[in-house]
Amino acid sequence: MKIPEILQVETPQVPGSLASVLNVIADAGLVLEHVTTLRREQGRTLWEITLEIEEGAQEDLLRRLSSLPSARFVGWSDRVFERHRGGKIEMRSRIAISTQQILRDIYTPGVARVCLAIKNDPAKAFDYTYVGRCVAVVTDGSAILGLGNIGPRAGLPVIEGKSALLAALVGLSGIPILIENTSTDQLVDAVRSIAPSFGAILLEDIAAPRCFEIEHKLRARLSMPVLHDDQHATAVVTLAALLNATRMTGESLEGLVVGLIGLGAAGLGIAQLLRSFGVQRLVGTDLRPEATGRLAQLGGQGLSLEETLRRSQVVIAQTGAKGLIPARLIRRGQIIFALSNPDPEIEPADALAAGAVMAADGKSINNILAFPGMFAGVLRARATKFSDAMLLAAARTIAAAAPAGQLVPDPLNGTVHEEVTAAVAAAADAGAGAGAGT
Amino acid sequence: MKIPEILQVETPQVPGSLASVLNVIADAGLVLEHVTTLRREQGRTLWEITLEIEEGAQEDLLRRLSSLPSARFVGWSDRVFERHRGGKIEMRSRIAISTQQILRDIYTPGVARVCLAIKNDPAKAFDYTYVGRCVAVVTDGSAILGLGNIGPRAGLPVIEGKSALLAALVGLSGIPILIENTSTDQLVDAVRSIAPSFGAILLEDIAAPRCFEIEHKLRARLSMPVLHDDQHATAVVTLAALLNATRMTGESLEGLVVGLIGLGAAGLGIAQLLRSFGVQRLVGTDLRPEATGRLAQLGGQGLSLEETLRRSQVVIAQTGAKGLIPARLIRRGQIIFALSNPDPEIEPADALAAGAVMAADGKSINNILAFPGMFAGVLRARATKFSDAMLLAAARTIAAAAPAGQLVPDPLNGTVHEEVTAAVAAAADAGAGAGAGT
Repeated sequence: MKIPEILQVETPQVPGSLASVLNVIADAGLVLEHVTTLRREQGRTLWEITLEIEEGAQEDLLRRLSSLPSARFVGWSDRVFERHRGGKIEMRSRIAISTQQILRDIYTPGVARVCLAIKNDPAKAFDYTYVGRCVAVVTDGSAILGLGNIGPRAGLPVIEGKSALLAALVGLSGIPILIENTSTDQLVDAVRSIAPSFGAILLEDIAAPRCFEIEHKLRARLSMPVLHDDQHATAVVTLAALLNATRMTGESLEGLVVGLIGLGAAGLGIAQLLRSFGVQRLVGTDLRPEATGRLAQLGGQGLSLEETLRRSQVVIAQTGAKGLIPARLIRRGQIIFALSNPDPEIEPADALAAGAVMAADGKSINNILAFPGMFAGVLRARATKFSDAMLLAAARTIAAAAPAGQLVPDPLNGTVHEEVTAAVAAAADAGAGAGAGT
Repeated sequence: MKIPEILQVETPQVPGSLASVLNVIADAGLVLEHVTTLRREQGRTLWEITLEIEEGAQEDLLRRLSSLPSARFVGWSDRVFERHRGGKIEMRSRIAISTQQILRDIYTPGVARVCLAIKNDPAKAFDYTYVGRCVAVVTDGSAILGLGNIGPRAGLPVIEGKSALLAALVGLSGIPILIENTSTDQLVDAVRSIAPSFGAILLEDIAAPRCFEIEHKLRARLSMPVLHDDQHATAVVTLAALLNATRMTGESLEGLVVGLIGLGAAGLGIAQLLRSFGVQRLVGTDLRPEATGRLAQLGGQGLSLEETLRRSQVVIAQTGAKGLIPARLIRRGQIIFALSNPDPEIEPADALAAGAVMAADGKSINNILAFPGMFAGVLRARATKFSDAMLLAAARTIAAAAPAGQLVPDPLNGTVHEEVTAAVAAAADAGAGAGAGT
């Protein structure tokens, strides 16, 4: 795996000294990310050079640099770890506690009146506490990114990342809830026990098929929105990208054969949402028979990998298996989404070269576009569940926010999350009482 | 219960117009907190007048104000509720997510390296996640302030207050965990299940005797610090105040008879810490026989209320019963701490008038002085439990931080919390391995 590292190198202030360092880096086959001046003094300059490097390849680079007589290696600064130091999130007081009067209002004795108001009218908790903007981000650590079952504590950096995104993009408080390795029922019981703490539940990086049962049981037993990100938020963004892809190709998505390669949480979530959207013909493949069984329950058909690729006009791969799709099996005119991160089932460039009309990977088609606004919207509407209508509204809104010629918008574009929030809240309000659960 | 309310009144800009309003307020028997000008225009001034008023007494005041021909009542602004709107806390991202590069470092793909580093060395979670500055603030809502068992959601404003104080005073992230009404074992199981999410556990407003069993079981089963605030943080501040009180009277605390009126969580926590400090003679009273039984287990003696007051040189009341202690039972030279909030068992002024050498209530002797620094200290030292040595160190530090002539310092004094943090961390480091649990 390539990692971003920051190299600190000192050179004399003479023509060509940085160029010679960059030439060495180029000769080592490394791609530069960023160069900046850290310090200039006494005729020498300290440079900070960010590059992507395979783990373990640092030694080779340093050996090459030592061949330059005038450049001096000063050290490595690991940017990724530095950005994680002390954690990525923190709970803050929204009120500066600067005087006794403020303390008496927000703590004892003033707080007692607010407690009693909520006791008399529980809905007031949404007005006078943070619960209406608070989402538990729950994991058991069983399917952390592509890393598998590394346990909940080791998964915390991912969960903090979700929480940081909820805060930065839509102003929600995401609370990491890491659940010790335990049975499905114990996990459900634990979440139920602490549910009053939150306004909604985001299930995250929980392995299939356990994730289906957990989501199903929590939805049945809690009167608050519950969503498994990897299933439904990924599905929303995938549908958004498909809406734009088929608009560009002039096809009607409902009429196409969609093939799903990998029927884990993401694959089945996508299948489910495509059915709700109106896609009639779903085929798919998975090594686990129970997974193709689940697809069959949704009206789809389990096939081999080759047959799935042969029969599909749209191919969506979510297997975690780098390079799984050989270019020779790509058919002319196919739409290929190879979504596994960090390494796709087929590189988009290779799929296009093999005849695909459109291709994308999981770096662009990422659920970061969906989950923040989906939670902000459902909470804004004070809805108690996510409905298919909300998911479809989110997908259409994301699709509409993409710039011309792109499948999806930039997730750091400031307006898409507010647009998704508004669309999901409107769908919730329109469906209030109808309550078609996902 | 008196509540702070903000009255908005408009008067003409002529001599005596505000004075006449204040005279009306005075005639109604109300104490002013604050007066400020909100707006001056067209010959009239809009005043904002903060006062404390019994709930339901607003009508009477308005009737009186209507007798003033030139003053116009504009409206009420409820400051306490306004300060709670939207909640008092929020989770924030510590990193501005402004570029794709930052996103790739803190989320996928960069985050995977941090996950793997923690998987290989779990202690790194303290370096690269927020867990080492994260405290669960756990309640079942069974003993919220003086309000009793109002349930966990209605207790959230109190828990958010704790969290806001942890953030504002020592920079810790306090995570409200509200546990649905359930058995003691289910509560313990739920907290154990989610324990990897946190660096320490603060139990809050859980009723006695359930609180003792919950704390005991969690301490036995979790390898992280667990503390029931109402027992131990209250005890630390009480001991700090007693150290200063006996220094002022020239007595030796160890040699005095200490009487505890009310043997709930706070009373028994105080008894336990006083024993650790070296107080030999404890007496006490409670309506519940099992409570005096617990005092006996600590070597104390259960007595009647009258006998407790008659035999004690120091009296510490924590009953929640306003005015429980009649002035006639106060003995000359006694130290009287009547700590129930918001209304003490005897007003300090009345106790002093009846012959007490020193008297205080729960407004000054409040655990806000102790719990922030205690948690910051234990986490700074990465200790896995609170020890008696840490509690005693905290009490001595708080006592030393009090200005001359005062029992305890101002909790909004910026240095006391850092001093407690440092003292507790030092005691943890000194006792590492010794591990005398509280």
